Amino acid sequence: MQQLIFTNDVATALSTVARGKHYNRIFVLVDENTSREVLPHVQCDAIAGAHVITIPAGDTHKNIDTLTQVWTELDNNGGTRHSLLINLGGGVVTDLGGMAAATFKRGIDFVNCPTTLLSAVDAAVGGKTGINFNGLKNELGVFREADAVIISTCFFATLPVSELKSGYAEMLKHGMLDSEDEFARLLGYDIQQASLDQLLSLLETSVKVKQRIVEQDPHEKGLRRALNLGHTVGHAFESMAMHRGKPIPHGYAVAWGMVAETVLSHMKMKMASASLQRLAQFVRDNYGAFYITCDDYPELLNYMHHDKKSVQGEINCSLLRSCGDIETGVTVTDDDMKAALDIYRDLMGI
Amino acid sequence: MQQLIFTNDVATALSTVARGKHYNRIFVLVDENTSREVLPHVQCDAIAGAHVITIPAGDTHKNIDTLTQVWTELDNNGGTRHSLLINLGGGVVTDLGGMAAATFKRGIDFVNCPTTLLSAVDAAVGGKTGINFNGLKNELGVFREADAVIISTCFFATLPVSELKSGYAEMLKHGMLDSEDEFARLLGYDIQQASLDQLLSLLETSVKVKQRIVEQDPHEKGLRRALNLGHTVGHAFESMAMHRGKPIPHGYAVAWGMVAETVLSHMKMKMASASLQRLAQFVRDNYGAFYITCDDYPELLNYMHHDKKSVQGEINCSLLRSCGDIETGVTVTDDDMKAALDIYRDLMGI
Repeated sequence: MQQLIFTNDVATALSTVARGKHYNRIFVLVDENTSREVLPHVQCDAIAGAHVITIPAGDTHKNIDTLTQVWTELDNNGGTRHSLLINLGGGVVTDLGGMAAATFKRGIDFVNCPTTLLSAVDAAVGGKTGINFNGLKNELGVFREADAVIISTCFFATLPVSELKSGYAEMLKHGMLDSEDEFARLLGYDIQQASLDQLLSLLETSVKVKQRIVEQDPHEKGLRRALNLGHTVGHAFESMAMHRGKPIPHGYAVAWGMVAETVLSHMKMKMASASLQRLAQFVRDNYGAFYITCDDYPELLNYMHHDKKSVQGEINCSLLRSCGDIETGVTVTDDDMKAALDIYRDLMGI
Repeated sequence: MQQLIFTNDVATALSTVARGKHYNRIFVLVDENTSREVLPHVQCDAIAGAHVITIPAGDTHKNIDTLTQVWTELDNNGGTRHSLLINLGGGVVTDLGGMAAATFKRGIDFVNCPTTLLSAVDAAVGGKTGINFNGLKNELGVFREADAVIISTCFFATLPVSELKSGYAEMLKHGMLDSEDEFARLLGYDIQQASLDQLLSLLETSVKVKQRIVEQDPHEKGLRRALNLGHTVGHAFESMAMHRGKPIPHGYAVAWGMVAETVLSHMKMKMASASLQRLAQFVRDNYGAFYITCDDYPELLNYMHHDKKSVQGEINCSLLRSCGDIETGVTVTDDDMKAALDIYRDLMGI
């Protein structure tokens, strides 16, 4: 069972976790950024005696070469099956470090300590580890939960507000999957003037929503697909933007995708129009709009038909009757999707 | 739950397994030898439509380069999370193929079809997948059981008798872990004049002994260490032989190691001397002896202290009070081990 620790005293939490078992060697995985910006602020006995492995920053380095570097450093610095790996960084560090730990000597203990809001809310819990391969995102990996996840907002003070917003979109998603109350609480928070203490409390609820879903369906056979809310359209937006050489942050794509898919929930599942209006306004105010015209529809539909969530080429979405009342694997026709994109454009004022 | 199929009609078994789920694509992994010697004899609808991945034969190719080749071929030939990989070969193919399947898109279904006695009795069940890395055996991998294992002795007719004996040593080990009756049944079989039908029946019992142990302790925290019987001394023999440029087959090393460790069981656990004598005679008659003198003891002890099963540098063995009555993790002093090696030499007539 994965231990989840919410704290603003990360050094103490790390010490406690590291002392929990008799590890013969502790390793810390950081990237060039967290090595400089984060590592000096979490010094404690666990870290002081550890071997630090530093990898290059950025998603382009989430690959087999970097993974091989981590395996080699574990091997050449006394790593055994009784060693611990602490992943201190964003999604690249926790995904790649998780895969390294899960495969080194058939699996050693690892702790995730996410340093971005997106990795805290999304990548650090749920057991999805992995790397990119052969031009495909997260193509290789295993399902393996971290033994502990230490979640703190203290690292976020220096993050750009766009990064905070990107992570917040995933929190909004969890709020919609949880309940009307949680959704309303999230819409009431001012992400532009973020209070980090308040954010820690919201984050705790949000991560636990995800954990509850993952526990019921660890290998994504059913309910876990609920976590794809907003991602069918969101990924298509992301792919189109990438293809045009103007990439957009993942969280922004999810926020815009959630608006389009909530239109579908309203159309097909009779979700209340008031929820859709509130969501659309929050997204417009905080994320602006992703600009599309009806000329873009064929390209977007093509991405959706080839999405890895698609079964036999049909477009699949997770939709809501109301916040907390989820239907996964709903088949959506091209005409429904086009109608939803029309209404998305109206709501976004484009 | 892993499906175990014992049959001499492999083609039908493969068809049945492949039809069990709606796989969108089937892959068969073979090495250069099984591609030529085995694949033509298991033709069926499942194989006919499959993409065949051929890797170089031999343990030196059980590495990250070959694994990358397999991942790439899965990717470039329509592999999805709904695909099936059939591993048709010896231990290298089942270990490496298992790891490829366990990590491709976070895990696809795979079937092991072992073509050597050693891989049938040992590598194809138990969930240990892996590759060599950085000069170390099975350094990377995950625990993941095959969805089905198809075990047949029909591939063994063309194997050299030394290969059969190598696998048979692991069967003897399972017999000792199981019961006096099973041990006696195995000692009564004539491996030099192998009847393959009779061997299939012995093999079925043997594999189920291992499966029963693995089910109780999948991640090798306790009871599973019983499967290391004979391996503490056996690995030391293997390492010494390798170091001297005269490698010995793994199974032979285990057979000789079991004699030495059964001496320890007699010395420390009061195992009956008659069992020891019967084992020693069978091993001497079928495997000859591994020649050592007391000048070799320091080197052998050094290997045992650095064995990956060793905890804090102490020598650990799994010992028996009688066949079926196991004690794992018994600490053995250097003096005990030297005494056991003395008696091993007496019993082997060297």
